[in-house]
Amino acid sequence: MMMKKYLFTSGDINGIGPEIVIKTLNEIGNLRQYKFYFACSPTVFYQTCKKIKPKFKFSFSEKYNPDSPTPVTILKLKNYKISLGKPTMSSGKSAYDSIKLAVHLAIERQIDAIVTAPISKIALNKAGIEFPGHTEMLAEWTKSKNFVMTFLSKKMLAALLTIHEPVKNISRLITTKKIHSVLDVITNSLKIDLDIPQPKIAILGLNPHAGEDGLIGNEEKDIIIPTLKSYAGNVLIEGPFSPDAFFANRLYKNYDLVLGMYHDQVLIPFKYMNFGVGVNYTAGLPIIRTSPDHGVAYDIAGKGIADSSSMLEAFRYANKIVNNRHKNA
Amino acid sequence: MMMKKYLFTSGDINGIGPEIVIKTLNEIGNLRQYKFYFACSPTVFYQTCKKIKPKFKFSFSEKYNPDSPTPVTILKLKNYKISLGKPTMSSGKSAYDSIKLAVHLAIERQIDAIVTAPISKIALNKAGIEFPGHTEMLAEWTKSKNFVMTFLSKKMLAALLTIHEPVKNISRLITTKKIHSVLDVITNSLKIDLDIPQPKIAILGLNPHAGEDGLIGNEEKDIIIPTLKSYAGNVLIEGPFSPDAFFANRLYKNYDLVLGMYHDQVLIPFKYMNFGVGVNYTAGLPIIRTSPDHGVAYDIAGKGIADSSSMLEAFRYANKIVNNRHKNA
Repeated sequence: MMMKKYLFTSGDINGIGPEIVIKTLNEIGNLRQYKFYFACSPTVFYQTCKKIKPKFKFSFSEKYNPDSPTPVTILKLKNYKISLGKPTMSSGKSAYDSIKLAVHLAIERQIDAIVTAPISKIALNKAGIEFPGHTEMLAEWTKSKNFVMTFLSKKMLAALLTIHEPVKNISRLITTKKIHSVLDVITNSLKIDLDIPQPKIAILGLNPHAGEDGLIGNEEKDIIIPTLKSYAGNVLIEGPFSPDAFFANRLYKNYDLVLGMYHDQVLIPFKYMNFGVGVNYTAGLPIIRTSPDHGVAYDIAGKGIADSSSMLEAFRYANKIVNNRHKNA
Repeated sequence: MMMKKYLFTSGDINGIGPEIVIKTLNEIGNLRQYKFYFACSPTVFYQTCKKIKPKFKFSFSEKYNPDSPTPVTILKLKNYKISLGKPTMSSGKSAYDSIKLAVHLAIERQIDAIVTAPISKIALNKAGIEFPGHTEMLAEWTKSKNFVMTFLSKKMLAALLTIHEPVKNISRLITTKKIHSVLDVITNSLKIDLDIPQPKIAILGLNPHAGEDGLIGNEEKDIIIPTLKSYAGNVLIEGPFSPDAFFANRLYKNYDLVLGMYHDQVLIPFKYMNFGVGVNYTAGLPIIRTSPDHGVAYDIAGKGIADSSSMLEAFRYANKIVNNRHKNA
């Protein structure tokens, strides 16, 4: 394998993104087997360096250069006004520029994987960008229809059937077609990306007590159970489990991955058990992208106190997935 | 205060209910300041005693007798067929008989508090009983309209705005009237029942990221936020918080109680953090009722291996609430 190349985005420049990227590069920036790229404006980079002194060798470049002379290369983005601690049109625009550059370099196979810093939906919205988050941009630009938001940690791998959806819409988004396509994506990703040859998946019910045999909602009886029976994929699936009992009894320990029906059903327990070390991964894309599982943290932006553990874990998982995809190609 | 009297129900006789009651009475049954009653059929009691030897003095009684000669009195219910490990019409009927007797003795003030063992909605249904759970029976028989399902533990107190509702119905159940009435009940219960004179309550959003300023659902902007502004109760309330971030950052430690919008939003983290020791309490009733926060556990029924810690905690909280109501009356 050639020297592996990773690109970090700045995320929202008014949040903790640039700080946690520099902190992460301080840990890994001098490792010889990699080349790192950071898509960031010079102003943001230098302002962040005032708080966090970089311990790696870096150079600036207008364009991507595979033969950059330094271990870390700052890919110069347009300078936008920094207003630490809040979402602005400028922070939305700069976040978008950074992701766009990153994804396109990954699509061209210049970069092995991208690791994205947190962004703000409100800032994107102020900048007139219609995407609700990273995942949807990645899907659009890589022309991927079947992508799945997954969460990686040593304690539990998890995936979502629906992502950033209002609770009132969830029921009608649970369809046989959707469940089958998500199971296809995660089965493939567990085998190829995570190198688990015979994965075991647990699926959660939608309703309290997983519907208790139709007494509290019908989606389990009418859709989820028949859908699992008709699924032809080569994977072991059990459920639908009663969500609260599943986590109370630590049943996730018996499975390679937990598939939940909606955002908070999975993210409340995932983030609670993986405080500061959870990683977000978009399965089903041709490119590899990971990110920390926390937000922009405007309240502590620019203070130099942000914890970069989750960002470092995001790089480690990206690297693992790059290696596994080579191995299982 | 007179000698305090507590009544335990048998719960579903095909589950672990009778076993965990006898195990709990083995811990507390000989304490001199209390009298205990157990509403259970003789057959079920004796069958359970084969596995769990009672360490307390007991007698049988056809009717409630305040001057029972023994520390524990078995209030004889009708014998129904036992079929360990599954919900049956008989187990539904016997569970119902036990609760009905308990609630009526509490309403008559013969009993200071009742502690209920777990029941099965499916068994109740087979027995032709329309109530979905304890809470709804208690509300009906005590003629209480404003009751709130709450969860008690040393780590966190929590309450639910909606209880056993299909996810697709939740949005339309979130109304200003409902939120105000739930806040009235829990504020009063925190002050009187839990002896917290100036309570601080956190309220969770409904949608992912608490709606992210209307980008993921409107219930926060349109209902929850204006409702909190217009609430006139004498209590400090903060929120709506993004549910996953709230638990990830352990923000519940800053509040006396967390009010969630729906069952699993609260019960996934509550049961995960309070494995085996959480207690269910119905706030807003004239009578006092607690119960363990787990189910009937049919899979281990009759094996003698059920953990009674949560049942014991349920008794302890019932006793605490009895004392606090006397103090704050």
